[in-house]
Amino acid sequence: MCTAATYKTKDFYFGRNLDYEFSYGDEIVIACRNYPFTFSNGETIQSHHALIGMAYVCDGYPLYYDAINEKGLAIAGLNFVGNAHYNEYKPDKENIAQYELIPWILSTCENVNQAKCKLENLNILNKPFNENLPLAQLHWILADKSECITVESMSDGLHIYPNPAGVLTNNPPFPYQMFNLNNYRNLSPKSPVNTFSKELNLDLYSRGMGALGLPGDLSSQSRFVKVAFTKLNSISGDSEYESVSQFFHILHSVEQQKGCCELENQQYEITLYSSCCNCTKGIYYYTTYNNHQISAVNMHNENLDQNKIIRYPQIQKEQIHYQN
Amino acid sequence: MCTAATYKTKDFYFGRNLDYEFSYGDEIVIACRNYPFTFSNGETIQSHHALIGMAYVCDGYPLYYDAINEKGLAIAGLNFVGNAHYNEYKPDKENIAQYELIPWILSTCENVNQAKCKLENLNILNKPFNENLPLAQLHWILADKSECITVESMSDGLHIYPNPAGVLTNNPPFPYQMFNLNNYRNLSPKSPVNTFSKELNLDLYSRGMGALGLPGDLSSQSRFVKVAFTKLNSISGDSEYESVSQFFHILHSVEQQKGCCELENQQYEITLYSSCCNCTKGIYYYTTYNNHQISAVNMHNENLDQNKIIRYPQIQKEQIHYQN
Amino acid sequence: MCTAATYKTKDFYFGRNLDYEFSYGDEIVIACRNYPFTFSNGETIQSHHALIGMAYVCDGYPLYYDAINEKGLAIAGLNFVGNAHYNEYKPDKENIAQYELIPWILSTCENVNQAKCKLENLNILNKPFNENLPLAQLHWILADKSECITVESMSDGLHIYPNPAGVLTNNPPFPYQMFNLNNYRNLSPKSPVNTFSKELNLDLYSRGMGALGLPGDLSSQSRFVKVAFTKLNSISGDSEYESVSQFFHILHSVEQQKGCCELENQQYEITLYSSCCNCTKGIYYYTTYNNHQISAVNMHNENLDQNKIIRYPQIQKEQIHYQN
Amino acid sequence: MCTAATYKTKDFYFGRNLDYEFSYGDEIVIACRNYPFTFSNGETIQSHHALIGMAYVCDGYPLYYDAINEKGLAIAGLNFVGNAHYNEYKPDKENIAQYELIPWILSTCENVNQAKCKLENLNILNKPFNENLPLAQLHWILADKSECITVESMSDGLHIYPNPAGVLTNNPPFPYQMFNLNNYRNLSPKSPVNTFSKELNLDLYSRGMGALGLPGDLSSQSRFVKVAFTKLNSISGDSEYESVSQFFHILHSVEQQKGCCELENQQYEITLYSSCCNCTKGIYYYTTYNNHQISAVNMHNENLDQNKIIRYPQIQKEQIHYQN
Repeated sequence: MCTAATYKTKDFYFGRNLDYEFSYGDEIVIACRNYPFTFSNGETIQSHHALIGMAYVCDGYPLYYDAINEKGLAIAGLNFVGNAHYNEYKPDKENIAQYELIPWILSTCENVNQAKCKLENLNILNKPFNENLPLAQLHWILADKSECITVESMSDGLHIYPNPAGVLTNNPPFPYQMFNLNNYRNLSPKSPVNTFSKELNLDLYSRGMGALGLPGDLSSQSRFVKVAFTKLNSISGDSEYESVSQFFHILHSVEQQKGCCELENQQYEITLYSSCCNCTKGIYYYTTYNNHQISAVNMHNENLDQNKIIRYPQIQKEQIHYQN
Repeated sequence: MCTAATYKTKDFYFGRNLDYEFSYGDEIVIACRNYPFTFSNGETIQSHHALIGMAYVCDGYPLYYDAINEKGLAIAGLNFVGNAHYNEYKPDKENIAQYELIPWILSTCENVNQAKCKLENLNILNKPFNENLPLAQLHWILADKSECITVESMSDGLHIYPNPAGVLTNNPPFPYQMFNLNNYRNLSPKSPVNTFSKELNLDLYSRGMGALGLPGDLSSQSRFVKVAFTKLNSISGDSEYESVSQFFHILHSVEQQKGCCELENQQYEITLYSSCCNCTKGIYYYTTYNNHQISAVNMHNENLDQNKIIRYPQIQKEQIHYQN
Repeated sequence: MCTAATYKTKDFYFGRNLDYEFSYGDEIVIACRNYPFTFSNGETIQSHHALIGMAYVCDGYPLYYDAINEKGLAIAGLNFVGNAHYNEYKPDKENIAQYELIPWILSTCENVNQAKCKLENLNILNKPFNENLPLAQLHWILADKSECITVESMSDGLHIYPNPAGVLTNNPPFPYQMFNLNNYRNLSPKSPVNTFSKELNLDLYSRGMGALGLPGDLSSQSRFVKVAFTKLNSISGDSEYESVSQFFHILHSVEQQKGCCELENQQYEITLYSSCCNCTKGIYYYTTYNNHQISAVNMHNENLDQNKIIRYPQIQKEQIHYQN
Repeated sequence: MCTAATYKTKDFYFGRNLDYEFSYGDEIVIACRNYPFTFSNGETIQSHHALIGMAYVCDGYPLYYDAINEKGLAIAGLNFVGNAHYNEYKPDKENIAQYELIPWILSTCENVNQAKCKLENLNILNKPFNENLPLAQLHWILADKSECITVESMSDGLHIYPNPAGVLTNNPPFPYQMFNLNNYRNLSPKSPVNTFSKELNLDLYSRGMGALGLPGDLSSQSRFVKVAFTKLNSISGDSEYESVSQFFHILHSVEQQKGCCELENQQYEITLYSSCCNCTKGIYYYTTYNNHQISAVNMHNENLDQNKIIRYPQIQKEQIHYQN
């Protein structure tokens, strides 16, 4: 399904793999500061923080999968099928459609702390964008350079969890994912000491044996463990190039290759795109399944004081550099 | 350490991750047809099949890590530390230094079958290239579009194994690697049926649960299982773009991220480069740890009838495409 | 820590391993029908169903670890350290001390359904039996021949869960244990078909390969999976001998051997005793770590209309039958 | 299939689980010192060390599964299907039928060292005992108080391996089993330190988490790992009672429960019997699947200077001690 992660060097980075069997037609979309957002709670925001993210633009409206704002706050929505539960209108709540959550938060909040306040009174509506689009069942990861949380709207209410791992995948609910990490506490990037038996002269036949037991399949709980281990032990220089490169390597660790996750009717879930946002500088980097070169859109290279959205198509064709 | 794989669509592909903590300075090197090769057995070959591969050029000589020839035969050498055993000169054998094996095979053989004949009388010498270079302990994977073998020179002799999986990593010896795959026979890219108990209504909470149990750590036996599963279940279109893209995705599945495989003195093994050769067309594609864009060198874009080697530096700087 | 399980053939069986580093001095104790039970809620029950179980008798009071009553209802308390939460007195609730729960249920309920009604208004008090005994942190498994539940008093309230697996160990909370079984849905007692790859001729080198992936360590989540698989796939004749024998074999699968679970100060957790109650017939079978022979106490061999408890010491010395 | 192990406290112990779907009718059999043994190499031994072991007596001849002699040397044969290879008569060798191996060794050797000398010239014949009995495919574990070896006759010859783990199961060949233990070097009976990430406060939610990753299924490679871990970390007092009790607990760890290893036609492999020999004192202890009490036969309670075998039937009926 999907994997999201945060990463911090000199700047703060945030991104995700979007894994699915087909694309709605995704674009990199900047919502300029004066592009008006209207929400289901009746509120219209005429002026707001600028946003950049990946979205499917439907009837002129950017349905964001993941986005950051110019203050360095980031959100991604990830599938949470079978556990997500949205509600009818509740008069004493902030009633926001599921597809509005990302702009609702990013347009006005500068950081996770402000977002948490705003989320406290949230009621997510079970209202699809239109009759042709299914109501996506999602949960969210929100992060800034100093904090990360997970938001899950379930049948027993809205949960806001601190997310010390800084990663998110899909099912099961977040407390189960975090609990499961306990089972991997003895894994390490270092070579392990022999504690099996002093009587046996066991051979350290390979580098990397300290993480034996780390799962490598593509199910959501296994990807959570694998990407948490990879991200939390990740080391890179703190330049923009080294940070961005390392972030995409982290996402490679849980990439879905065509053929390895088979659905019905010979369809296959693959990593449609991988993204890495420099939240500090407002740059959206991405690769697609068929284009390994990193492409980038920098929000600050545009006039953000407009009242429109600016759209960039995904570059999906492989860009090979021929040296001869 | 390293992972190599084969892949077949319309054309035949072969490549590898080279995982190590530092690079000797690798280049893409074409050995033209009339570049003379001299071997430890006294033989000099003046005219031969042209080669292209990744090599460290030392004193003007290309020490190939992996290469293909213009007939579509491919070889890669991978670390086999602790198990590789090379020998003193034996008068009744073809005595070839370890570093000469790749050109010795590729310069004269058109396919694996011819290589097997040539290997039958081989004695690999324990002779380093020079006093400054250690004697690398390697084993090899050889492949053409219809056959794949593994070659291991050990203390009990030279072994030539059919390699039906078409992958190779490092330790343990090849028969152990293949035996170990038996333990994963019930893994599948499809969603698994509940056979645990008819009395329990177990939830299929994620896609991809059919491969639960697949290892995800970076040790050599785990990489062997993971890359075998990924490659053998891989599906792609058969165009050049789709094939090459898919091949690099297969290699991503066993990529080594900086920080996740720690050596002594805070050194880390990483995937220095990944390569994908179109063996049918003589094109060498590669990426490096810090450059996600695929670069390519096509041997047939050069005059191959020269008596020299042609060298291309690795493009190691991230090539980002800025869309604005 | 501990493992409990149910088993049904012609009769209904229930039992457990009690795993700990020392024993308080356990005895098989029958509480006859007129042995008066006084509870913290002020209630005294003068006449009740007879009970038989394993208990530490302190100041003449049987502190039951596990017990059944003459109607065929069974309960066992198992460690739930870090998650169990008991409360202060609440005026609108049935206030029962943790150590009173087993007699409070068994003395008056005939089956799980009646117990569920009684549990609805329960408030478990954080009141130790006396100042020398720590307040054990427990959760409970209740079962009769047609139903099984788990009871957990946590900081967010009292939870009563249906337990379709019919087993219990320790941490984590029960919903986590049941969720975790999803990850083993493709395990089976049968030999697995090769779904890894049609291109490989993988060898079925052993019987029993269908359960590869089943955990074998002694941690509580692993024991839950192992005993669930063993019990749910268990097959036996339905005679008393075959049923009881099979039940002890099920418990062997999660037995803790001395040395394999090391605590601090060179102490080791071991399976102090294993029990198997024929709930239909009121017979308590048990073995101890150092006595492999099954011993038995039959409640119906006593006059149950007395007003006292009847105590049998555990037979802990190995009873070997010498054939010559 | 089967699991064998050694154990040393004050005395030396040796035993095994025999796992199969049916029994030929096994008895504890003493071969007295003057019971004549005739071997396929033409040799007849009139006077020899006395033996005790489990055997199927066919036409008056004890076909031993496992046995010890009065000098403290022990052997067990375990299934090795698909890998065992026996041969035609070879004139320059000691030609011994597979079913003769145990008496051939035990009748004349005092220890493993003597056995190794005798094995050097061995040729195991592919000759069944009679036309009704299949030629069992076996390998062997031999042990005395100071040394343990494994003997495997394969298509590439007879192998004699030192066995530092002191355990044996079935396939794959012994070097593969020992290599596989390397993958468990970081397992431990102690609670593990968190090395996954310093940034996460992972919970040690259970005792015994140091061995997470230990396999628990019944396949032969998994049983090898599990019994090796259990035996090598085992701790007990050194009295006869404590040693024997602990040995049976070690065998419980790899016991096969009826239903968990399903063959075709609804047959199930189970642990037909478990044995524990005090090799120092010549006592054969055993339990059967349906009799948990330990039974024992002491060879020194018989007149060993006879010229016959002495047979004791297995006590297979559950011996329950009723306390009331």
